[in-house]
Amino acid sequence: MNLTFEHTTLGQRVLFGSGRAAENLAAEVARFGATKVMVITSESHLSMARKVAVGIDVTLWHTDVVMHVPVETAEAARAAAGGAEIDLLICIGGGSTTGLAKAVALSTGIPIIAVPTTYAGSEATNVWGLTEAGRKTTGVDNRVLPATVVYDAALTLELPLDMSVASGLNAVAHCIDSLWGPRADPINAALAVEGIRALAEGLRLIKADPSAVTGREQTLYGAYLAAVSFASAGSGMHHKICHVLGGTFNLPHAQTHAAVLPYVLAFNAPAAPEAEARTAAALGSDTAIEGLQLLCGELDAPNALKDYGFALEGVAEAVELVLPAIPAGNPRPVSAANLAELLTGALNGADPTNLTYT
Amino acid sequence: MNLTFEHTTLGQRVLFGSGRAAENLAAEVARFGATKVMVITSESHLSMARKVAVGIDVTLWHTDVVMHVPVETAEAARAAAGGAEIDLLICIGGGSTTGLAKAVALSTGIPIIAVPTTYAGSEATNVWGLTEAGRKTTGVDNRVLPATVVYDAALTLELPLDMSVASGLNAVAHCIDSLWGPRADPINAALAVEGIRALAEGLRLIKADPSAVTGREQTLYGAYLAAVSFASAGSGMHHKICHVLGGTFNLPHAQTHAAVLPYVLAFNAPAAPEAEARTAAALGSDTAIEGLQLLCGELDAPNALKDYGFALEGVAEAVELVLPAIPAGNPRPVSAANLAELLTGALNGADPTNLTYT
Repeated sequence: MNLTFEHTTLGQRVLFGSGRAAENLAAEVARFGATKVMVITSESHLSMARKVAVGIDVTLWHTDVVMHVPVETAEAARAAAGGAEIDLLICIGGGSTTGLAKAVALSTGIPIIAVPTTYAGSEATNVWGLTEAGRKTTGVDNRVLPATVVYDAALTLELPLDMSVASGLNAVAHCIDSLWGPRADPINAALAVEGIRALAEGLRLIKADPSAVTGREQTLYGAYLAAVSFASAGSGMHHKICHVLGGTFNLPHAQTHAAVLPYVLAFNAPAAPEAEARTAAALGSDTAIEGLQLLCGELDAPNALKDYGFALEGVAEAVELVLPAIPAGNPRPVSAANLAELLTGALNGADPTNLTYT
Repeated sequence: MNLTFEHTTLGQRVLFGSGRAAENLAAEVARFGATKVMVITSESHLSMARKVAVGIDVTLWHTDVVMHVPVETAEAARAAAGGAEIDLLICIGGGSTTGLAKAVALSTGIPIIAVPTTYAGSEATNVWGLTEAGRKTTGVDNRVLPATVVYDAALTLELPLDMSVASGLNAVAHCIDSLWGPRADPINAALAVEGIRALAEGLRLIKADPSAVTGREQTLYGAYLAAVSFASAGSGMHHKICHVLGGTFNLPHAQTHAAVLPYVLAFNAPAAPEAEARTAAALGSDTAIEGLQLLCGELDAPNALKDYGFALEGVAEAVELVLPAIPAGNPRPVSAANLAELLTGALNGADPTNLTYT
């Protein structure tokens, strides 16, 4: 088979070191030659952020961070940045904090240094999102890609075990979907399988000892690779399903991903032998689904959507919304009946390998 | 062990497709909105270059390409570009052609689209080189990194089998040295092992049928990954040795790399278990050195430096020049006696696994 692909590598600098965030951030701010720095962080992360920013002159602290980046929140941050003639944005926190910095960068072009405190991965993508009147708009713009990411696994130690597991499995889902997403290519695949390997190792270590930094490091590193490969490959079947479950049925993001992933993997794997084999190898298992189920079991991962508010009455509507969104290039053709069986299985936490899709 | 690294990903667009160079190049020139295009290519590639550039308006054809980019050659190309108010450079050819485009970009900032016709990999790096009065100066500057690379494996079909093998094994050496180079990191490693896998597969296919495009594709793809990972990780022990052998003893570049690689791998492997294991896995072999020797044997690879002009009298001088250049972080400490044994082995084509380094 011929090798044909189009791949855009996004230029970004990554400084990875546990306990080194303050030192790495200060060096990076100096390298930028920035004179008016705005730090964006949430109230809940403020004391952590002050420690991370201890070596730099901060012109403006901005803590008005709201989930899903409402337009008014973005406008307020833009006005604050403009008023103080900010020439460098630093975001310290999770996805909403990074998202707010991106919203400012989108309209101003001010560069961002991101210091993430979760495994969400937004810091490694050029995707932005804004919410207006309850509707989320997303887009792609290279101006919102942080120029530098300072990764410090010690900053993720506060993330509770269950959230770490769900968020880490969400990252595994990013990796696996990258193997068959609409812009899947071998470069994305190489990064994605390394991500799966690191995440599986990291999550097992976190489970064994949530207070140790080594598991956090592997998980954070894997989450970065997951974001890079997923942003390039685009949403596959898994993310299309989870997008509907989150958007229409309000199911929690990370848990939904963790619960749905085994079903999509078991469904697609027979039609995607290379993705299957590479996932299996990355998980150190004979088959991909075996490896994933073993991992999810060890982690006590979320495994039934009914535990998160999904109910049988929702299946038909979900099928109707998901079906047209499945990418044309999905390895296995998907029918409404397939989706209904998959979603019902995920709802009840049935064994994904027992679903027959006849 | 803690995970600590600094990694700079260079932003670049890659369009990969056999027989698609003309189409992909035309689309890319349109995307740039360029109006004054200069094509740099050697006389020997001119007819191929005309076919590749068939869909674009070329303001200036420049064919004064000289190996190692002498400063006068660079100045002439810069003057030509300036005189014609060029806003986009296209280089179609091997390393010297790409090198000349980089020299122009270095002083002018004009973006480059590279269309490589060999497995040298210069198109994927931000490294430039210029030669003045016989001395080569190299440097790193993001302005010389081609914005886009158009890879078309059909353009490499003219590369003879022996050159393809030597050049492909040179790329394998880039990958392996990336695993322990001074800025080695897990991201480089992930790309490097994928490169090794692709190169081993591609070179075997080229050997079986040099006129088939599938082996060329895997080799070209692997050479791209080799360049990306090597440019980021920096020269390890292998390249330091080959640099001296090429520079001081005038040995041919690609063949020297191919012949020396098994010796460096066999020397370092016992002290670099992870690099060893990942190389072995990428080669589908029990051990890295076994896999590499099997590959080199199947390919009738260059395996004794005496066949390329190196002689026993040269060993002492080579040891003296190489020793201070070995990176401090090399997995295994290197003594003068080690180097003498290694170089003598490589000179004679001895079995690298029989060297004892006592």
